[in-house]
Amino acid sequence: MSAFRSIAWQDGLVVMLDQRLLPHETVYNEYATVTEVAEAIRDMVIRGAPAIGAAAAYGLVLVCEHTSANTVALLREELARGAEILRQARPTAVNLFWAVERVMARLADPTIDSVETMRTAALAEADAIAAEDVAINMQIGRNAMPLVPEGATIIHHCNTGSLATVDYGTALGIIRMAHEEGKGVFALVDETRPRLQGGRLTAYELKQYGVPFKVIADSASGYYMRVHGVDLCVVGADRVAANGDTANKIGTYNLAVVARENGVPFYVAAPTTTIDMATLTGDEIEIEERPDREVTHVGTWQITPDDTPVGNPAFDVTPAKYITAIITEKGVAYPPYEESLAALMVAEV
Amino acid sequence: MSAFRSIAWQDGLVVMLDQRLLPHETVYNEYATVTEVAEAIRDMVIRGAPAIGAAAAYGLVLVCEHTSANTVALLREELARGAEILRQARPTAVNLFWAVERVMARLADPTIDSVETMRTAALAEADAIAAEDVAINMQIGRNAMPLVPEGATIIHHCNTGSLATVDYGTALGIIRMAHEEGKGVFALVDETRPRLQGGRLTAYELKQYGVPFKVIADSASGYYMRVHGVDLCVVGADRVAANGDTANKIGTYNLAVVARENGVPFYVAAPTTTIDMATLTGDEIEIEERPDREVTHVGTWQITPDDTPVGNPAFDVTPAKYITAIITEKGVAYPPYEESLAALMVAEV
Repeated sequence: MSAFRSIAWQDGLVVMLDQRLLPHETVYNEYATVTEVAEAIRDMVIRGAPAIGAAAAYGLVLVCEHTSANTVALLREELARGAEILRQARPTAVNLFWAVERVMARLADPTIDSVETMRTAALAEADAIAAEDVAINMQIGRNAMPLVPEGATIIHHCNTGSLATVDYGTALGIIRMAHEEGKGVFALVDETRPRLQGGRLTAYELKQYGVPFKVIADSASGYYMRVHGVDLCVVGADRVAANGDTANKIGTYNLAVVARENGVPFYVAAPTTTIDMATLTGDEIEIEERPDREVTHVGTWQITPDDTPVGNPAFDVTPAKYITAIITEKGVAYPPYEESLAALMVAEV
Repeated sequence: MSAFRSIAWQDGLVVMLDQRLLPHETVYNEYATVTEVAEAIRDMVIRGAPAIGAAAAYGLVLVCEHTSANTVALLREELARGAEILRQARPTAVNLFWAVERVMARLADPTIDSVETMRTAALAEADAIAAEDVAINMQIGRNAMPLVPEGATIIHHCNTGSLATVDYGTALGIIRMAHEEGKGVFALVDETRPRLQGGRLTAYELKQYGVPFKVIADSASGYYMRVHGVDLCVVGADRVAANGDTANKIGTYNLAVVARENGVPFYVAAPTTTIDMATLTGDEIEIEERPDREVTHVGTWQITPDDTPVGNPAFDVTPAKYITAIITEKGVAYPPYEESLAALMVAEV
């Protein structure tokens, strides 16, 4: 596994690697309350759909850990409030909602008869989510290997590695596994404006794994496809609708359109927890608008003139027709996605 | 005209607004030698194809101004060396080569019989290039007006305004003129990584002109086309091949592909001096690779981990098939460009 971990439970606290400070500083923050965890998700101390899911689960453990409730009924009220605070943190990634629902469903068990039992159950469920995430990511990688040619040049957008998950990663996990299997792959890393998760986090991870790569401006992807040749693109997802439309980091749509125009396969890698069968198409997905400062500044450096107006959508929706396949832990789904995703969702791993 | 001017001749020196420092500092640098001017072009004190052309022309005037040659023959040798130094400054924008050739052709006049006459002729030719550039840009704007609907939302890439020309601008001049004519246009300004000419320079200009706008990440253009609706894109050019293939700032190709996919007209605005009939297709255009630091840092802020490998092509080539029309001072060229550009090149203004 990686030399770092995005999130861990330690002595009654949630510990998260502060990804806002990477690659320059490696700082682990401790969180004692669900409100603090929700703020950390909103401020992007932790980001990436699977990692956010795990953080939310541990946020609910914190409610049980530090509660002053002396009855299960009072604790359930606190948990319901905590769940609501977590759901408000970020609107787009479905794993957040999924993880909250999963823990709350476990804790709805009527046989839970004490605060201590509730705490134990919450922690067990959060730990299970975290452990499953790592296993799922490894399986996504294994399922993807037949799709990665020897010596492939691969464009990757945003960060979908260990930092975006509990460990190993989804799309970046595929690149890592292909490298570990000796396929001799090369990564073109979209820097991913505005928050530069590619230039900061993906570069940080790939250096540690020894994968050869170059960071490029997001808008240079088409140049590399036309002039140098690119074999595939692989990205993560924040939410996949039942028809395959995929919400992911802003710029994913542009990359997918340019890939299709150049005949470059475009893959989405995500656990099935990112697939939201209740969202029929991408049009229903709420897109978060984030603070201006992410565009007007990089670090402490101001780019734009004072009071420059900004548009800062955090995500876009890539229509299913641009997506060659969706790679999950349960298998690889191909169009038409209405059918292939529905079949995957009921399949065993 | 604008409150600032990219370049001027003043008391025997070339004065340029240092665009690397904008929008934070407004510093005018003075240059006394052609070598200094070539360095200023290479370091992007001045940038934008038409502005580079004017700078090169004035660079040759400096050779005459500060020469120690006491014969016309010796001065011609110095001019030839100066011309070569200028040609090496940047490889992609054809206006640089065009301006050098124009001044050198003027100075080849065999009736020039003194160093002083040569100086006068060089300055007259450079002044003519500068004055014509402004007139040409205004005419590009007038020719474009029928193509800009009332209330249009327009995506613009890089900077093509007063700063990229001697004054007024090409693509940005169109947006400015549409605003001045009361069309109620709105500009979506691609920030234009890596050097952020959009976020820094275009934002700076549009604020001064009072044009309403928003700066966006380059990769968000498709989101705005799909979700909010965009009426047209307009960009400048560094070189247009005889078949209409257009070299322009990196990211132009991605924008053009996404525009076509969304049915959004995509216009190139450029003076005919940017059209290079000797370049048959875009495949022949040399693409400049610029220093890593433009990607690894923004201002003094380091983005990537130490020693991160980078790809940094300054330009890309947009194939003609993605370009709805090419707007010049001599008229608007439509496909097939082989014919329409050839006809324009021999037309009178």
